[in-house]
Amino acid sequence: MSTSTPDQDRIRAFFSKNDRLARHLGIELVEVRPGYARVQMPIKEHHLNGVNTVHGGAICSMADFAFAVASNSHGQVAVAINIDIAYLKPATSGVLYAEATEVSCKKTLGLYGVRVTNDKGELVSEFRGMAYRRPEQILDFEGEDKSV
Amino acid sequence: MSTSTPDQDRIRAFFSKNDRLARHLGIELVEVRPGYARVQMPIKEHHLNGVNTVHGGAICSMADFAFAVASNSHGQVAVAINIDIAYLKPATSGVLYAEATEVSCKKTLGLYGVRVTNDKGELVSEFRGMAYRRPEQILDFEGEDKSV
Amino acid sequence: MSTSTPDQDRIRAFFSKNDRLARHLGIELVEVRPGYARVQMPIKEHHLNGVNTVHGGAICSMADFAFAVASNSHGQVAVAINIDIAYLKPATSGVLYAEATEVSCKKTLGLYGVRVTNDKGELVSEFRGMAYRRPEQILDFEGEDKSV
Amino acid sequence: MSTSTPDQDRIRAFFSKNDRLARHLGIELVEVRPGYARVQMPIKEHHLNGVNTVHGGAICSMADFAFAVASNSHGQVAVAINIDIAYLKPATSGVLYAEATEVSCKKTLGLYGVRVTNDKGELVSEFRGMAYRRPEQILDFEGEDKSV
Repeated sequence: MSTSTPDQDRIRAFFSKNDRLARHLGIELVEVRPGYARVQMPIKEHHLNGVNTVHGGAICSMADFAFAVASNSHGQVAVAINIDIAYLKPATSGVLYAEATEVSCKKTLGLYGVRVTNDKGELVSEFRGMAYRRPEQILDFEGEDKSV
Repeated sequence: MSTSTPDQDRIRAFFSKNDRLARHLGIELVEVRPGYARVQMPIKEHHLNGVNTVHGGAICSMADFAFAVASNSHGQVAVAINIDIAYLKPATSGVLYAEATEVSCKKTLGLYGVRVTNDKGELVSEFRGMAYRRPEQILDFEGEDKSV
Repeated sequence: MSTSTPDQDRIRAFFSKNDRLARHLGIELVEVRPGYARVQMPIKEHHLNGVNTVHGGAICSMADFAFAVASNSHGQVAVAINIDIAYLKPATSGVLYAEATEVSCKKTLGLYGVRVTNDKGELVSEFRGMAYRRPEQILDFEGEDKSV
Repeated sequence: MSTSTPDQDRIRAFFSKNDRLARHLGIELVEVRPGYARVQMPIKEHHLNGVNTVHGGAICSMADFAFAVASNSHGQVAVAINIDIAYLKPATSGVLYAEATEVSCKKTLGLYGVRVTNDKGELVSEFRGMAYRRPEQILDFEGEDKSV
C-alpha cells in the first residue's frame, strides 16, 4: 500500500465501527472508493415522522453519512460546512439507498453530490455537501477514546 | 378555541407522540406557538460521528423537527421541500437547542429559519427550510395506523 | 406539432427577446430542448467584481437564465423559489457556459441542476434550482406590455 | 485609525469604484460597517426577466454584492464559496434594498445573511452566503490593472 493510496477497506471498517449515529439508525456502509461511497437504510418504524413518512432528518443522516465517507475517502479528514437537500418524493417502506460522488476536490474544499433513491430506483432526495479538508488523517482517529 | 387558532397543546402532544425519529434520537419538543417551535437534545453517544463530534445528521434531525413543528403550527399540514444547513461549530457534549421561527408563510409555501445553539449560547448551526403546504389538517393524522 | 409538445424554437425566441437582464449582461441562449437549456456568456469588463474575477451575481444570472428556460421548456410557466450555488473556481476571461438539466419535474415543483464551465471545460460553479409551476403558458406572455 | 479598524470609507469607495457588475446593473452601495453592508437598486427595464418581474439573477447580484462588501468589511479578502437564495415575492417596480449582516466570522470561514426588501418593506428574498477568508487585504487590490 503506497502512502498516497489510503486503504479503502480500513476506511470502510473505521466508519462502520465509529459512526455511532449511523449504527443507531441502522444505516449500513456498503461501498467505499476514492471520492465515492454508497450506503443503505432499511426503513424502520423509528425513521418515521408525524405524517408516517421517512423523516427528513433520517434521509439527511444517511446522505450525510455517504457524503462524510466519500469526502474522507482520500484519507484526509474532511468536515461538513454546508449542505443543501431537495426532498422530491416521500418514502414509507422498503430500503433507501444513498450514493455519494465527488464533484470537486481541492486543497481545502470538496464538493459532493448524493442521490437518495428507493428500491424502485425512484429519486427520493438530492443532497449536496461542501466539506472543509483539515490536515489530519482520518485513520489517526482509530483507538481514540470515544466516550462523550 | 376559535377555528383560526389551532390548539398548540394538541399539536405539541401530536408531534411528541408521533415523530418517531425524534423519540429514537432523544429530541424533546419544548415549546410550540404559531410559526414557532423550540426543541432540545441532550447529547448522547449515539449522536456521534467517526471523529467524535455530533453528526451532521443528528443536528439536521433536531433542526428539521423544530422546522416541521413550526411549519405545521397553524394546523395545516406542511412538508419540507428544501433545506440548507451551515455547520459553524462542532458540538461534543452537553445539550443542544434548536429554535425555529417563521420567515414567510403564504398560501402554498412557507420559509423557516432554525438556529441551533449549545448550552453556552454559541451558534452551532444555522438551518433554513422551505415547506409546501398541503390542504390537510395535521391533527386529522391522529389515530392513524402508524405501522410501517 | 402536437399540443403536448411546445414549440422549442418559439420558446427560445421568446426568452432571447424578452429576458432583458440576459441581454443587458450579454448572455446568449444557445439551445433549448424539453427539460434542457444551454447558454453562454463571453466575459466582459462589466461582469467583474472588486477583485477582478467574474462576479458571483453574473455567474448566478447566467445559471439562473439557463434554469429558467429549462424549467419553462415544457410550455408551462415555472418560477424560481429556491436556488443554491457552489462557487468552485474563479473565472477571469474567455467564455463561460451554463447547461441546465432536469432532475425532477412534477405537477407543481421541478428541480434543475446547472453546471457552469469555462472554455477549458473546467467546472466553475454548480447551481441547483427549484421551480414552482404555475397554470399559465409561457408563450401567452408574448405581446404583453414590457414597460416597468 | 488603528490597525484593527479598517477604514470603512475606503472600503466603500473601493467597492463603489471597482465592482463593475454592480455599476453595470445600477446597484448602489449605501452603507458599510464591520460585518454589515447595505445596497439599493432602483428597478430598471434591464433587470427584468421574460415574465416581467425582476430577474432572480439581478436579485442575486445585489444580495451577493451586499454579502461581498460585508464579508470584506474587516479588511481581509473574503470570497464566496456557497450561497442559497429563497425567492419569496416577485418585484416589478420601485427600489429594492439588500442588507447583509454577519452571522459568524472565524479564521477561515464567515457566514452572512442578506434580506432583500421592496419599498413597502416587504421581504422579497432571503439570501445566505458562506465566504472563505484569504490572507490578502482587500485594499491592496487598489491600483491594480482592471482590464480583462
